[in-house]
Amino acid sequence: MTYCVGMQLDRGILFMSDTRTNSGVDNISTFRKMFHFEVPGDRCITLMTAGNLATTQAVVSMLLERGKSPENRSPDIEKLPSMFQVASLVGQTLREVIAEHHGEGQTATANFNATILLGGQIKDGEARLYLIYPEGNFIEASPDTPFFQIGETKYGRPIILRAYDPDMSIEEAMKLLLVSFDSTIKANLSVALPLDYHIYENDSLAQGRTGRIEADDPYFQEISSGWGVALRDAFAALPAFSFD
Amino acid sequence: MTYCVGMQLDRGILFMSDTRTNSGVDNISTFRKMFHFEVPGDRCITLMTAGNLATTQAVVSMLLERGKSPENRSPDIEKLPSMFQVASLVGQTLREVIAEHHGEGQTATANFNATILLGGQIKDGEARLYLIYPEGNFIEASPDTPFFQIGETKYGRPIILRAYDPDMSIEEAMKLLLVSFDSTIKANLSVALPLDYHIYENDSLAQGRTGRIEADDPYFQEISSGWGVALRDAFAALPAFSFD
Repeated sequence: MTYCVGMQLDRGILFMSDTRTNSGVDNISTFRKMFHFEVPGDRCITLMTAGNLATTQAVVSMLLERGKSPENRSPDIEKLPSMFQVASLVGQTLREVIAEHHGEGQTATANFNATILLGGQIKDGEARLYLIYPEGNFIEASPDTPFFQIGETKYGRPIILRAYDPDMSIEEAMKLLLVSFDSTIKANLSVALPLDYHIYENDSLAQGRTGRIEADDPYFQEISSGWGVALRDAFAALPAFSFD
Repeated sequence: MTYCVGMQLDRGILFMSDTRTNSGVDNISTFRKMFHFEVPGDRCITLMTAGNLATTQAVVSMLLERGKSPENRSPDIEKLPSMFQVASLVGQTLREVIAEHHGEGQTATANFNATILLGGQIKDGEARLYLIYPEGNFIEASPDTPFFQIGETKYGRPIILRAYDPDMSIEEAMKLLLVSFDSTIKANLSVALPLDYHIYENDSLAQGRTGRIEADDPYFQEISSGWGVALRDAFAALPAFSFD
């Protein structure tokens, strides 16, 4: 599994992804699931992937190679004029990769599906955030639904729903996602640290603060142990049930 | 979907189930998912079901009919000498019902599977709680894993994991399950009030307090709105994130 969140704020877009991949429970590895495409002053695009690793790596490689040899190939993630066209390109690439392996050769017992979160900004456009489905179509975040999750979405969703505020600071948003990731990591073995993050600041058109939170990160450990206590305190503060 | 929890406490077993059944999102109904078999002074057994409604109703009807015409039939949920044998009977009945409809007649696009929580006590035995799988086999709750959930288990799990205490009072346990159900109901349309509950008190060998919490229950509404505020307060109380 995987857990990735893209969250649109007034100040920009916060991206966070875990790094665990697994095939069953006895074959786990660490892989980066967050990728950046940047042309400073023109665009900054971040992509996070969930699903079959062969599929997502192929998609990212194809997007990169298209950029590296532009003469023999038309669309290019670093040249397209709008985020909508970039999302279309990524969706089309994803659909092609899945179709290529689906039902080919040996009968596949594996599911080649993948889902992608795509966000960023291109000059003269707004910062945008998309969720791209395995079929290649996609939806865009809006003020009503300002964040998307992919992978193991359930455990970490309630706290985002309750505490999200478009006006929150980047630091508060980081804290919120760390609590959401902690709940998910505690409940699902197939989601794990380290966590990658990228903070895109609106209209910067350049990669923002990027980093990796390791398993021994003292702040994450503080959040992780503190949240259990805070939850128990919150529960205790609710009015008592009575049969009368 | 469905959400049911059986929770073993030092004082007894608390059972709670929702009442929504759905076939798609445009065909929803209210059905009871909690059933009791009682012989006062000898045994009290509670059963909660999740999964295909035709399957679970057939299982419960077969268990009841077996009780009503005991002469032409051997095992009987009201006569078997131990909870283990009752769990075996329920598991066997469940497996038979599923097998009967699986692949029969028109090709089924529906999944006939169901899962059952079974708990209670029979004279000269301990109070026990079982989770019975569609295959008919089952697992028993223990001090390490003192509660079972069936149906939509993820949203409501973190708070139980954090706040459960075997020594808690029945009132605290009711409050805990109401918070867990509230989180689930808020996140999944296919889980809904009213909620049925039964509190079996150890060694009573009789049905304990039983009731239904309706959608307009004032305490539930207090918990539901209060929990959002409590969660936000708990989040705010955690130490702030800083990039330095």
